[in-house]
Amino acid sequence: MINNSITVKQAAQALKAADNILLLCHKNPDGDTLGSAGGLMFALKKLGKTCAVCCNDIIPQKYDFLNLEVFEGQFIPDFIVAVDVADTKLLGDKLSGYAENVDLCIDHHPSNTGYAKTVCCDGALPAAAQLVMQVVEELGTELDIDIANCLYTGLMTDTGCFKYSATTAETHIAAAKLLSAGAYHDFIANRFFMSKSRRTIELEKHALNTLEYYFDGRCAVIELPASVLEAVGAQPSDIDGISAMPRTIEGVDVGITIRQVSENMFKVSVRTNENASANEIAAGLGGGGHTKAAGCEVMGSMESVKNAILREVETALCR
Amino acid sequence: MINNSITVKQAAQALKAADNILLLCHKNPDGDTLGSAGGLMFALKKLGKTCAVCCNDIIPQKYDFLNLEVFEGQFIPDFIVAVDVADTKLLGDKLSGYAENVDLCIDHHPSNTGYAKTVCCDGALPAAAQLVMQVVEELGTELDIDIANCLYTGLMTDTGCFKYSATTAETHIAAAKLLSAGAYHDFIANRFFMSKSRRTIELEKHALNTLEYYFDGRCAVIELPASVLEAVGAQPSDIDGISAMPRTIEGVDVGITIRQVSENMFKVSVRTNENASANEIAAGLGGGGHTKAAGCEVMGSMESVKNAILREVETALCR
Repeated sequence: MINNSITVKQAAQALKAADNILLLCHKNPDGDTLGSAGGLMFALKKLGKTCAVCCNDIIPQKYDFLNLEVFEGQFIPDFIVAVDVADTKLLGDKLSGYAENVDLCIDHHPSNTGYAKTVCCDGALPAAAQLVMQVVEELGTELDIDIANCLYTGLMTDTGCFKYSATTAETHIAAAKLLSAGAYHDFIANRFFMSKSRRTIELEKHALNTLEYYFDGRCAVIELPASVLEAVGAQPSDIDGISAMPRTIEGVDVGITIRQVSENMFKVSVRTNENASANEIAAGLGGGGHTKAAGCEVMGSMESVKNAILREVETALCR
Repeated sequence: MINNSITVKQAAQALKAADNILLLCHKNPDGDTLGSAGGLMFALKKLGKTCAVCCNDIIPQKYDFLNLEVFEGQFIPDFIVAVDVADTKLLGDKLSGYAENVDLCIDHHPSNTGYAKTVCCDGALPAAAQLVMQVVEELGTELDIDIANCLYTGLMTDTGCFKYSATTAETHIAAAKLLSAGAYHDFIANRFFMSKSRRTIELEKHALNTLEYYFDGRCAVIELPASVLEAVGAQPSDIDGISAMPRTIEGVDVGITIRQVSENMFKVSVRTNENASANEIAAGLGGGGHTKAAGCEVMGSMESVKNAILREVETALCR
């Protein structure tokens, strides 16, 4: 329950009154947490504020063009803002010391735990960047190329390039303003949506070679044995993309990805559409999650784990 | 050379003065030609006009939701409009009789041959739908869900879901208006960008299994033997998607797809980035096309064709 909610206007007022502002991102940073923090950083700098961005992990090279100023102790923070961070757990170990001292959280997750002193959250928005854009407009700072590149990256990556369901007319209007301000559309679109690493391609090949259909094509299963993951050098972000794939095949209601994490331990990712509950399927093997995306960890062999999850899928499809 | 150019306003005036309007699409119809024709059809119907859409090919089932009224001789056409058709050759055999009698062409291809009596063309736009939207606004018809679904489909599919380089602030503003008018964002995004047929998935698997890199990873080659295409039952649209794939791999400047069309005949698709000219590579084997996408047909075996095109690629990469 969030009873410390504030409006965009109040968030902007608080930021105007502050200085030496530290902007916290979530761990395993993505385009939205970095782009949102960066957009706010450049806007605050335009107002003469001292501020910088801080993250538990090293910022991946593909975000270099955002030109974020990373916090390395160059000032003593007086005001701490978390951006796109729904829960203090997501700050990561290195930033956990800040958990009790976040002055303002700007977020778009309906699950935000309300950990900050004040929370500006709109759970209907597809990206935190869309909310940060409102804050930046309220701050009265004109959009420039730096702000635009950051916010466009957040908007584009968290909406899956304007295809996810929370995308609205307002999202497109925000995008239009950012392009008018000079955001590098081509560069950003190419970097995040028009290129794949050789590693990703190799992993997709292995995944497709194991693809099997069950229950009249209503369930598709992909297997990722440890040997393949090691040979390819797969990263967590590569596996996320693969897990989403089987469910997107025409006619498939339940997509299953079974990934071997050690000799006898397997992580099962369950993705569903409106015809089945991922959460119920995963719960059958002691896991859980959301209605359309859930997971569980199961001991056994690839074969026994597959049989176990298929029994849960069968039950779910018969409901 | 187009010396019969007219403005959006003039196009709208001509349409207002007309009735019994036949809207022609290009053969192998895509979301933009169908969506643009459909958007115009619904707008003209709102003005009380008799009109219908006509295409050389059967309209694929996935466009059923556009609710196009297909021309089957229900009136005698008095005014003929071609939408998204750059050249009369693209009308297809069945519609070739109309080639000399097109009153108005609305298009976004810089290569438009100017075959129509009047041409309203903006080669800078990413989709014909964006231009048709301007015409619809000029007609004074309010956007409704039917018009919006058609134009949003055109806009979304021809921009690759707002990722291709011709996407601008104006494109997003058009998208915002169409969503405000009730376009089924979720449905359209899911249908065109979040699902793949089992056939496509099967073809991708075969393609990835043949993937090879050359010249320090600057060239990627995919082979599609006739046996695979037959086994999968591949459609032209499936192959288009595959041809685009090798070039999108990180570090690849030239993507090659070799497709066997008969025992001794092979179609080679060449895709490049700014580091090489697809047109020059294809021209080396008697083909041609655009700077970034070109093709040629070559006699021989899969192996000899591959060697021949690789020699052209090597020359291009050394330039």
